[in-house]
Parts: sequence; C-alpha cells; structure tokens
Amino acid sequence: MAVRVGILGATGAVGQRCIQLLDGHPEFELAVVTASESSAGRPYGEAAKWRIDAPIPSSVADLTVRETDPSAVPDDVDLLFSSLPSGVAAEVESAFAEAGYVLSSNSSNDRMADDVPLVIPEINPGHLDLLEVQRDERGWDGAVVKNPNCSNITMVPTLAALDEFGLERVHVSTLQAVSGAGYSGVSSMEIIDNAIPHIGGEESKMETESRKLLGSFDGAELSHHEAEVSASCNRIPTIDGHLENVWAETGEDPTAAEVEESFRAVESLDLPSSPDRLIEVFEDPDRPQPRLDRTVGGGMAIAAGGVQETPAGVQYNCLAHNTIRGAAGAAVLNGELLRREGWI
Amino acid sequence: MAVRVGILGATGAVGQRCIQLLDGHPEFELAVVTASESSAGRPYGEAAKWRIDAPIPSSVADLTVRETDPSAVPDDVDLLFSSLPSGVAAEVESAFAEAGYVLSSNSSNDRMADDVPLVIPEINPGHLDLLEVQRDERGWDGAVVKNPNCSNITMVPTLAALDEFGLERVHVSTLQAVSGAGYSGVSSMEIIDNAIPHIGGEESKMETESRKLLGSFDGAELSHHEAEVSASCNRIPTIDGHLENVWAETGEDPTAAEVEESFRAVESLDLPSSPDRLIEVFEDPDRPQPRLDRTVGGGMAIAAGGVQETPAGVQYNCLAHNTIRGAAGAAVLNGELLRREGWI
Amino acid sequence: MAVRVGILGATGAVGQRCIQLLDGHPEFELAVVTASESSAGRPYGEAAKWRIDAPIPSSVADLTVRETDPSAVPDDVDLLFSSLPSGVAAEVESAFAEAGYVLSSNSSNDRMADDVPLVIPEINPGHLDLLEVQRDERGWDGAVVKNPNCSNITMVPTLAALDEFGLERVHVSTLQAVSGAGYSGVSSMEIIDNAIPHIGGEESKMETESRKLLGSFDGAELSHHEAEVSASCNRIPTIDGHLENVWAETGEDPTAAEVEESFRAVESLDLPSSPDRLIEVFEDPDRPQPRLDRTVGGGMAIAAGGVQETPAGVQYNCLAHNTIRGAAGAAVLNGELLRREGWI
Amino acid sequence: MAVRVGILGATGAVGQRCIQLLDGHPEFELAVVTASESSAGRPYGEAAKWRIDAPIPSSVADLTVRETDPSAVPDDVDLLFSSLPSGVAAEVESAFAEAGYVLSSNSSNDRMADDVPLVIPEINPGHLDLLEVQRDERGWDGAVVKNPNCSNITMVPTLAALDEFGLERVHVSTLQAVSGAGYSGVSSMEIIDNAIPHIGGEESKMETESRKLLGSFDGAELSHHEAEVSASCNRIPTIDGHLENVWAETGEDPTAAEVEESFRAVESLDLPSSPDRLIEVFEDPDRPQPRLDRTVGGGMAIAAGGVQETPAGVQYNCLAHNTIRGAAGAAVLNGELLRREGWI
Repeated sequence: MAVRVGILGATGAVGQRCIQLLDGHPEFELAVVTASESSAGRPYGEAAKWRIDAPIPSSVADLTVRETDPSAVPDDVDLLFSSLPSGVAAEVESAFAEAGYVLSSNSSNDRMADDVPLVIPEINPGHLDLLEVQRDERGWDGAVVKNPNCSNITMVPTLAALDEFGLERVHVSTLQAVSGAGYSGVSSMEIIDNAIPHIGGEESKMETESRKLLGSFDGAELSHHEAEVSASCNRIPTIDGHLENVWAETGEDPTAAEVEESFRAVESLDLPSSPDRLIEVFEDPDRPQPRLDRTVGGGMAIAAGGVQETPAGVQYNCLAHNTIRGAAGAAVLNGELLRREGWI
Repeated sequence: MAVRVGILGATGAVGQRCIQLLDGHPEFELAVVTASESSAGRPYGEAAKWRIDAPIPSSVADLTVRETDPSAVPDDVDLLFSSLPSGVAAEVESAFAEAGYVLSSNSSNDRMADDVPLVIPEINPGHLDLLEVQRDERGWDGAVVKNPNCSNITMVPTLAALDEFGLERVHVSTLQAVSGAGYSGVSSMEIIDNAIPHIGGEESKMETESRKLLGSFDGAELSHHEAEVSASCNRIPTIDGHLENVWAETGEDPTAAEVEESFRAVESLDLPSSPDRLIEVFEDPDRPQPRLDRTVGGGMAIAAGGVQETPAGVQYNCLAHNTIRGAAGAAVLNGELLRREGWI
Repeated sequence: MAVRVGILGATGAVGQRCIQLLDGHPEFELAVVTASESSAGRPYGEAAKWRIDAPIPSSVADLTVRETDPSAVPDDVDLLFSSLPSGVAAEVESAFAEAGYVLSSNSSNDRMADDVPLVIPEINPGHLDLLEVQRDERGWDGAVVKNPNCSNITMVPTLAALDEFGLERVHVSTLQAVSGAGYSGVSSMEIIDNAIPHIGGEESKMETESRKLLGSFDGAELSHHEAEVSASCNRIPTIDGHLENVWAETGEDPTAAEVEESFRAVESLDLPSSPDRLIEVFEDPDRPQPRLDRTVGGGMAIAAGGVQETPAGVQYNCLAHNTIRGAAGAAVLNGELLRREGWI
Repeated sequence: MAVRVGILGATGAVGQRCIQLLDGHPEFELAVVTASESSAGRPYGEAAKWRIDAPIPSSVADLTVRETDPSAVPDDVDLLFSSLPSGVAAEVESAFAEAGYVLSSNSSNDRMADDVPLVIPEINPGHLDLLEVQRDERGWDGAVVKNPNCSNITMVPTLAALDEFGLERVHVSTLQAVSGAGYSGVSSMEIIDNAIPHIGGEESKMETESRKLLGSFDGAELSHHEAEVSASCNRIPTIDGHLENVWAETGEDPTAAEVEESFRAVESLDLPSSPDRLIEVFEDPDRPQPRLDRTVGGGMAIAAGGVQETPAGVQYNCLAHNTIRGAAGAAVLNGELLRREGWI
C-alpha cells in the first residue's frame, strides 16, 4: 500500500522537480503540498508558476495548497519532503518532527548537526541509524534526515570509491548550473557571456559535508573522514548539471584503469528511484558534458570521465543533474530508504 | 621613426585583433598583411570577414593581401607578427627567419624548442637572449620569439609572484572562452547550455610552457622550473576571457595579504602596450568575472581575486583577455620588447 | 511485418534524430545507414559523433556504414529517409529513385519542382498523388516525396487553419535555433550574446514553400495558394525550437477565440508518429517558449499562443521542434503516410 | 560654465550607465546622486553594486548618496536625470518639478500625458515647447521631459525617415536584450537556451509612443500620427542591443535604395552626445547584429540593414543599444537639448 506523502515548499524549483519525480511513483502517493501563506488555499496549478518542460501532473494541479504548518497536514501523511529556504526550514522542520512527522529534507540548515543523518543511500546508508540518537536527544516522535548539497552528491560517490586506495586530499573546481540557485537566484545579466568564481557558502559546504558523508558511525557517534577537501566553486551559464574537476590524492597510487574500475564497482540499490548503475564512466575525454549527460540514469546517476594519473593525484571529471540527483531526487531516494529501513 | 611591420595570417581572429591593436601604434606602422592564396591579391577589407565590434581601420581595409611567403614581403619590413595555424607556421616561420625577418609569433609550434625564447615581457625578458643561441644554431639572419598560450599568460604572472615563497606545486582548473579556439573552433551546438571538460593539448601546454617561462637562462642554456603543474581545462559559453582557479603550494606559507601584496608588486614595463599595473587584485570574492573584467588595463592586465589560505596551498582566481593579452597583444608586446632590446 | 528502411546521410544531425525516432518504431526496421566515403565500412557507433542526449541505440551502433550509392543498398530495403546536404542530394536522390527506391527526403533540393510532392501529412496528404505524375514524367520505379523546411512546418499548419477565414497576407518573423543549420552551421562566436537577422535562402523558402503546401491538387496539376507571405528570419542562441511571430490577414475578421478554436480543430492522424493533437494552444501570453515547449506532443506537435486581434491581422506566435517535427520527424511521418497510402 | 546635474535612482542599471555617460561630460557636472533610503548616507561606491565593464569614475565613487527627495538636493543643481521605477517616479517626479527642478526622465510613467513632451532630439525637438503648456496647466516652476522606451528609440527614427513616402502601417517584431528589464528583471533560468514571446506592456508602448513621437505640435496641442503600428515583442538571450524586424507600408513605393538614402539623410545634431550620423546603414544582409553593432556611434546611433522591397511593404532591420541610446543616453541627450533650448 502506498505511503501518503507531502511536499513542504512545493511551488519552488526543487518542489516542482519533486512533484515530477513522484508522478507515478510505485510506493508514494502525493497527498499534500504546502507553500507560503500567499499561495495557501489556491489550487496548485494556479499557485505555482510551473517551469518544467513536461506538463504538470493533472492530479497535482487540482490539489489545494496548504500552509506550511503541522496543523494543516493530515495525520495519515507519513513522510514529508522539505525543500524550504534554509532560513524558514530551521524552525519549521523541528515543529513538524516534534509533531511526529518524518522528514526527508533538502534544506541546508542543520546538515552538520551531530544528531542529523546526512545520507546518500548508496554511500552511507548506515548513517540513518543516527535517527535513534536524534530522537533520544530531541524527544521527537518524528525525525529529520538530510541529503547533502548538490555539489557534494556529484563528487562524494567518486571519493567513496577512491577511499579503498586511502583518500587523503582533494582539490575540486566546480562549474555549476544556474538552477542550483533557485528560479530567481542568478539573473541573466549576471551570467550571459560570463562566469562567477564564487558561490556563497558553497566551498565550505563541499569541505565539511563531504567529510561527514565519508565518515563512520559506530552506533553512538559519527566520526568525520580526515581527508582534506579544498573547493573552488564557479557558476556558469548552463541550465542544469554540475560539472566538477577533481584531483584526489590517495595513499596508494592506483592506475587510471583501477580508478575507473572502482567507480564502476560502486553498487546501486534496488530502490524505486535508483539508477541501474550509480557511476557511469565515459571513455571519451570530452565527456561528461552537462547538456549531453545530465540525464544519464534518468538524472539519478553520476557521470565520470577523463580519468588520468598525475603526480598531483588522480585527476577526473564528474557530473550530475543538480536538481534531480542533487536535490529533489536525493530527497525522494532518502524517503525510499527510510521506508525500506522501517522508519515510516 | 616607425618600424614597418606585417601580419602573417591577418584574416583570422588573432590577426584581426592584431590589426586593432596596431591601429594608431606609436612605434609600429602596419605595412603588410598576408593570408592564404585564396585571399591574396584582394583588398583586406574584402578578403577578411571582420568580426570585431569596432570598425576596421580604413588604412588597413585598402591594403592588398599578399601571399604568406618571404618573396611577397618587402625588405623594409622589419618585424612580422605571426598568427598562423601551427601546422602551417612550422614551415613558414623558418622560411621567413632564414630570409632575415624577425618574427613575434603566437603560433604554438616550436614553443618548447630549446633555442626558441618563450617570453612574457614582464616575467622573463632575459630569455630573449636565447635568440643568440638560436641564430648560432640555425644560421638565421632573422629570429623567432614566441609568446605562450593564452591559459599560461593568465596564470604564469601570478605564479612568478608566488615564487618568492618557493613555488612547488600547482593545480589549475580553467574556464576558457570560445574565442580561444578561433572563429569556427567551437560550434554553437557544442557549447550553448553546456561546458566541455577537455581542450586538446591544452593541459600539457599548461604543464610544460609554464615551467619554461618560470625557468632561468644562464646565457647558454635554459633550465625549466621544477614546480609540478597539473591542469584541467574546460571550455564554457563565454566569448572572451579565460578564468582560472588556482591552488599553489609553496615552501613558505604566505598569508592571503602577503599573496595579494606579491601580486600587486609585479612590475609592469614602460612599453607602449603595457598596462599601468600588470596584476589588478580584486577584493570582492565574486571577481574577477570574464564579462566585467576582461578589459582591465585595456585587455593587457591580469585580474586576480578570491585569494584564500587553505591547507592545500594558496587558492585564488585569475583572468585575462585571451585574444588580447593572451594572443595578439602578447605578440605585439613581444615585438615592442624586441625593439627596445635592439633586435630590430 | 516491418518495412525495412534506410537512412541516407545518417551521421549528420538530422540523421541522428532519425535514428532516435526509428528506435522501437512499430512499422519500420532500420536496416541500412549510409554516409560519405570516409565513414563507409566502419561501425556506425564509431563513424558518427553521437550528440543526442540519449544513448545511441545499440542495434544501430553496430551497423556497418555503407556508401551512399544504390549499389550499396540491398533490394529488400523499401524506404529511404534522406537527410543529405542539398548539393549532394540533387544527384543522389534521382539515382536511388531511378533504381526503384522510395525516398522520404528532408533535403531542400527540388522541393519546388512541379512533380515533387511537398507534404505535411495532416495538412495536404492528397498532394502525395503527385507521385503518379512524377513517375510518368521521370520514368522512375521509385519515388521522391519531400517535407518542407522547418520554419514552414512550424507556421503552415496554423495558416491552413486560418484559411477557413480566407487567408490573404502573412507577415512572419522567425527566431530560429542553431540546430537548424546543422552541427557546425553556426559557430559559437557568431551567436553567443547575439542574434543574426539573416539566414541565407530561408526567407524565400518560407514565401514559396508555404504557398505550395497550401495549394490544391486536381489530380494533374498543383495550384499554389495566392496568399502573399513575407518573412524575416533570425538566428538566436537557442539549441532547438523555432519560435515565430505571425500576423495573418484574412478576408473575414475572426475573433481571437475563433482563431484558437480553428487551431485546435486541425485534426491529427493516426500514424505511429502523430501527436495526439497537432496544434496545442497556450493561454499564457508568455508561451510557447522554445526550451519549455519544444517537446510538446513528443516534439511532433505545434505550439501556438498569444493570439490577438489587431487592425493589421490576427497576431500570434507558433513554435515547433525544428529537428524533430521540422526535419527528422517530418520525414518519418511522410514515410508512415507513404506506407498507409500503399506507395511502399 | 558647467551645469550642475543630479541622477535620481543612481544605483540601478540605467543610473549606472548615466554616470558612465556623464563622466568627462563637457557641459554637465554630476553633483548629486540619489537612491532609496537604505542607500542614503553611504558613499556611492559602496551603495551601488557597479556592474559596468569599465571602472566607476573615482569622483562619483566618493559622492554621498542622498535620499530621493527635493529637500535633499541643493538648489544649485539645475537638471535631474530620472531613472526611477515608474511606480515610484509618478509621485516623486511631480514633487521635484513643483520644487522647481527640470527633469529629463527615462521612467515610463506619464509618457502619454497630453502635456508631457516625449522627445527624441533628432526627430521631434519641437515637441519640447509642450513644456509651456505643462507649466501653465500644472503651475510648475520646473518641468518634466520624457524619452520614449528603448524599442521605440530603435525604430522611430527609421519610421520618421520613411514618412516622406507617406507612412501608413507598420509591423514590427523585436528581439530584445535582457538589460532592458533591469538588472534582476530576467532570471537566467528563464532565458538561457530560450526566448520569451511576450514583454508586459511593451507592445502597447510601441503602438502608442511611436505615434506620439511622429505627431505634430501646433504650439498648443499635439496630434498623434495616424499610422497603424502592430508590435510583437520578444526577449532573447543577449545582454545589450535591441534588434527589430520592421515592415513599413507607405503611400508611395520607394525602392530599397531610396529607403537607404532616406535613412542616411536623417540629420544628427551637434549636441555633445550626438553621434556623427544618426542612422548607419549596413550593406551586408547579416548586419546589424547586437554584439557587433550595438556600439556604433558610441552606442548613440541606430544601425539599419537588410532593406528589401516586398509586396507587403518595405522590410528592414534596425538595432540600437538599449541602455545607452535607448535609456541613459536618451535622457542625457534630452538634457543637452533642454540646455541648448534655454530651459535650464
């Protein structure tokens, strides 16, 4: 029987992707959409300015938008996807968790909190058990699990693969798409014929979230990985798909072939939204490219290529669809994991 | 009295910039333009498809295009700027040098030859004396000096500044403009809403040319610098201006302020095309940006910013106009240096 | 039983789209791909630089590319899709037709010939009977049917609808995507941050092909429609999707609602590649937009919107995917019509 | 002696252009910059996010931003350029005019008011005398003159030229740059790989302002021109420069050569910001193009090309820099006319 789910902040860019990904979902039935007060009470199809290049599912167009408040959400809704602005989310998510709801959140607040699991299902599913610590400490009936930011989701699966060679140090330069900043985040005058070598807060997110994701959980406490990560983040004029140049230094010196093999060996899961293979490795050094490869694995896989051995570490490129694998799809996948692990 | 100069390959993108930069030049008078056979004999204004956003100088529009052959160039022309495709240049440049012409060449052939000076006037003007070795070995009356490729011109001045702290290792990711590939080098279908994580040959040029530029010349032989350089090169949808993310590891650990100070301390020259200051340092972490900052110093300066100390080395961004400072302007500046040093 | 088909010029942009559209086709089995001599003999997956954002069908990747010559194509292939450059096509298509093959061609040569049917299946299917005249006159066992150029496919269905009000005069401005010029047709330096107010030959194609498409065939001769069409064609920096601003003057003065009704009333066909509805009408004046709406009806429908009554005629916008509905899909649809009408 | 001038709304995109154009102006000295309350009291260099690709003039960087209120502006300032949002301008401009200031305003409010002159100095300078009517009716010591919106400034000079043949009817399609909507007006997600066939209010502005500009003033009342204008307005991914496709029907049928001659014959003025020639005619049908030609005449001229005779009227393209000639430069030029005509 399908789990009834809701989306908090359903009119934004990530909320819209979430709706698209839940359309026809085998396990989840979208029952509730919430947004800001000005939208509440209106049919979703009117309240949202739908900007995805596929029609709005008709069942969703007619849903009445509710306020983003626990009292407005029926009790038989078991799972909420949150894509609220982080400022709003900090308060609202706690209120929902206290009221007993389980949240799979894409918002950036609290990702680094000691008792909040930050999860990529194929990489660190065991971190989900931090929820027991969370409930103990916060006295919640509900729970909050987070997915990392889009730039980390693109890179961390490759780093996890390389950790078999003893990951020590990472340099990463990102070429990020404008959709990562939300619908109005980057004005066209800023970015046409241009690039911006700075994205507020992004570099430190890459440096800290990655180490938490690669860390180990002993049932009580989470130790972060000790690799050093140094990131340089750029916005470029692409719509979707973050491309990243990575150099990873490891204790052992694997060949390029061994690196590619380690990427291909990362196992995907059998969750409904899992891609067949998590990391697709391209042989052509021109690839992956955002426009051509962002939809690999339905937008849920990571594309990698250009693997080279250098004196300064293994060098390669990786790419993922930032609003599917990097945001809405990441939250949905965490929801699927929550269900399989019995948290809902 | 003005030196009479010519441009080999004058109809291409770099040739056109060269014409623009020579318009009104205080020391050089453009007397000859050459191109391929199909253009020879026609007025330049007809033979070239002019694509610069400023009118073609009228004195040049009426010049008759000549064949790219020593016999077609009058003897009173003392300096030739070459922006030929490297395949053609390999043969043609030697023929001109043998015939007694002095060439300032932007073509990539022979840049790494032991007896060919590869020069950025503000950084390694002393390398020009390699021309004596060149004449000895080749028996030329003329000479060939090269400027490095555009990505190196953007980065190497900053590395030269950092060498006072003992430069050891460099990671660099580039976000390069489409004009770097010539007028037809990148098709619009390849690059709109996209990025390409590979530029053929560019990474190795960055790794080898940079070490030659930073090397020392003892009057007889040139030793390359021992720093390790690892480059990852990307094409993005910008018209002009290469942006680069750099991490430089040095023996000493300078503060960000010391790094900025070292950048500002690089002296410009008093040549006609020199910018007032070679490296402009921006405080705003959003800068430099290609569209806003590529014309700093009339397109002849380097813009730097985002300087940070990290455990993985000093991190910063640099930017230069790839067809001005990185190509046509570099060749003109080398020509000005050749004149000041008495080679013409 | 599936008809065995081939693609002439299969490595180009339209050829690739054609392969994508034939993948899993219920009536056609792709048996032969041809290209230029330099590609012949190699597996298609190697010979073609595949640039569509979906994987190359594996059955096609292994097909050996053949020369574009009747002797290289087996006799049991009954239908050929041609997307050759028009210069090549002029000669080659005749040779194939003479050798007995039936061709559905997207190439622009011969579109205006008196005995060549120019067909949009939903608009003028009866013109197909011109093939009898063609065979009589040319003595061919085979046949050649053409689809119009992409800009006309976008506009003509709307004009056909308006003809019930007595179409008299049309002004149309186009905003055309770069893919319409083929993979290397528009360089990135030409079009980034730019628009080009001229596409060679396009304006006259719009003015003549449209009148042929709207003309009537009496079984012996085709009369062109008498409406006056004046086109202004522009290239803009979009990948796919031609947007057109149209003013149509008609004998009667329909209201905007009547115009929309006439658009919706154009019937689609029940061919395998037909969209559910040929013309989708948008209410939001911001639509249709190339990136959001080019895939309406799987890329095979026309999107229309912004319908207004003005003193200068009915004003509206229309849009179609230029390489699907406007080229490869148009040829495939004509192939389906040829089969249903018994020509193959 | 220089007139002391001020800019109301100096931190916005048009305000910044205005500052750039006034830098080194021979007749005007920029003494005052105003902005919203949150900026007041801070140095301009801090309050404004400067986005022009030339440095901020140092004399302006240090000016203290004042509130946009007559009491905050010294009496010795004789002319104010206004580039306020039209909602704000409606009230504020009246207050300044009542307080005795003369305003040259780019804001769209009140452009169609009977007693407000809407002026392009080369086209309808005589309309300035409407200011006498304005002062009479409103009892102002000051005055307000408006420049039209950017799309009209691009087209109307060509229509004025064609009026010698009896202008009757105009169809115009625009391809407008994103800067026309202000710095944050068009998000990058809306416009990359896209075009938007609708700009709110723009079509009606083109239809009404153009007729007022072409109208005649008898000293007491202004009659609008009777030509019918029908506009279709599109936003495309260009930074600056509006390109327009025009068809103009006239009583007489001029040849293309006569049309070009009439364009070239429009006289420029001898005001400091006037271009040498108002309309530059291009022979190459590919031109004018936004990126290549928007700076013709220093951004103050109109570029035209592609002139053809058609049965549906004379067809041609025109282009102007929308934030220079189409906004800030238009206001400055009106200021220069006000001075020459003795209004300040």
